[in-house]
Amino acid sequence: MSSSTTASNTTAPTQLLKVNDHSYAYRRFGGGPGLPLLFLQHFTGTLDNWDPAVTDPLAAGREVILFDNAGLGRSSGEAPATVAAMALHPMAFLEVLGIERCDVLGYSLGGMVALQMVQDRASVFRRMILVGTAPRGGEDIMHLEKPSLAKRIQDPTNRGYDVLKKIFFTASPSSQAAGEAFVRRLSQRKDDLDPVSGPKVAGAQIAAFREWEGFEGERFAELRGIRHPTLVVNGVGDEMIPVSNSYRLSENLANAVLLTYPDAGHGSLFQYPESFTRHAAAFLASNSESAAV
Amino acid sequence: MSSSTTASNTTAPTQLLKVNDHSYAYRRFGGGPGLPLLFLQHFTGTLDNWDPAVTDPLAAGREVILFDNAGLGRSSGEAPATVAAMALHPMAFLEVLGIERCDVLGYSLGGMVALQMVQDRASVFRRMILVGTAPRGGEDIMHLEKPSLAKRIQDPTNRGYDVLKKIFFTASPSSQAAGEAFVRRLSQRKDDLDPVSGPKVAGAQIAAFREWEGFEGERFAELRGIRHPTLVVNGVGDEMIPVSNSYRLSENLANAVLLTYPDAGHGSLFQYPESFTRHAAAFLASNSESAAV
Repeated sequence: MSSSTTASNTTAPTQLLKVNDHSYAYRRFGGGPGLPLLFLQHFTGTLDNWDPAVTDPLAAGREVILFDNAGLGRSSGEAPATVAAMALHPMAFLEVLGIERCDVLGYSLGGMVALQMVQDRASVFRRMILVGTAPRGGEDIMHLEKPSLAKRIQDPTNRGYDVLKKIFFTASPSSQAAGEAFVRRLSQRKDDLDPVSGPKVAGAQIAAFREWEGFEGERFAELRGIRHPTLVVNGVGDEMIPVSNSYRLSENLANAVLLTYPDAGHGSLFQYPESFTRHAAAFLASNSESAAV
Repeated sequence: MSSSTTASNTTAPTQLLKVNDHSYAYRRFGGGPGLPLLFLQHFTGTLDNWDPAVTDPLAAGREVILFDNAGLGRSSGEAPATVAAMALHPMAFLEVLGIERCDVLGYSLGGMVALQMVQDRASVFRRMILVGTAPRGGEDIMHLEKPSLAKRIQDPTNRGYDVLKKIFFTASPSSQAAGEAFVRRLSQRKDDLDPVSGPKVAGAQIAAFREWEGFEGERFAELRGIRHPTLVVNGVGDEMIPVSNSYRLSENLANAVLLTYPDAGHGSLFQYPESFTRHAAAFLASNSESAAV
């Protein structure tokens, strides 16, 4: 198994792994007693969108593995248009990488992929952290056409990471200040950057959100079969994937603790990185059958 | 200031404090660097209903003060029939006890009293922990006549603390086992016990719940003026004060973190005392302006 030479997403080199006819971009760094922790990313996000204030403290206790799904960053292929199809890529990647068992942190779209993977291949995963995400059949998932969001996304004065400051954080001065710090941290990585996702990726992933809003049979029934200890996290002011979706997750998953943050939007983990990583590290360090730590 | 000779609710002596024409029963034990922590109790509960697995670990970092409101246990007078009237008693008690500033842990009805006190006398309180409670205008608060609850409360085979096992815990084997352990812990206190509350106390407190469900003007607006760092805790299966009330608290309080537990009912703090006291102690130890620790 290869290991990176630095333990920060600011400097960790991007690696490529060939799996059948695909090539996946990833970064792998850190170490410690814990199982590897696979990070699954948000809508259009690449390896460069992982805040080092979140990845690096967690890399102090385990290897962290950041992953570009097909069609994202420098991974080959096209972005899938369903969550189920997205889940096949990290599964194949883990297998070839030789990771038989790991923990997973899924953020936003990545949380949906994590849920799908845990349903499809329960034994590969031990503990799951779901941030700012929604179950299948969730409500109001990433409707970027909503006036409140569209105004901020289409504002021509917002460019690059600054858009994230407007949509991942609330309008309060304290949240916007946290957003500026977040953008500064992402901007510290200067070299070996992923290409930014284009409209084709966005279109496929929006289609996946629409498909994920649908459900058949009893709503949320599939969650009750998932017994993995799970930590669900969200900001109470999330306009992209409202916190009600996190409520439904923690109510219907068999074994989930919910943690919500005040004055925070979709990017709660980036707004409170010290608190989030403290809770996440304690959760991951536990070997209890219960999610409660 | 007096201090008890033991640091456990299993053995701490009950004390009485004269305040004007009232006499209040309380227990005070523990010590450490933190501000005193005032415990406010649930429907019909007395000093003897505080689980030592919750009080004692917290008493390792600060004095804890358990309080019988008027008409409860060995406190004089009649149980008030509104939360606002209940809030006057601990305020007067704290003043005569010489406590100018403290933290407060309110459970169920006690959480409503804590909210009222923090609104009425903001400067007395630093941090607030609200477990299994509801804001003014909350929903489905303590409707013991609901068939699901009435069946368990009126079951003649349930006596004394065993009723709590049925109504504070879920029907799952793991939750019921935790309930048995809880009852065993309460039963360890053998002497110097409070009298059990009768129907008069229950009637007054039920009237207070009904009054608390009402609201005027914009629902939950008063919560947005409370800036105290707050930790809100509940079990996702609480049938006495449903978890939706905790969602409304954490969404509308300016500065509240929410923690919910799986497989748990109204007594989540007694089901997961190690986890609860770990989170509560970390929250109380913080001097941050933010509730996020």
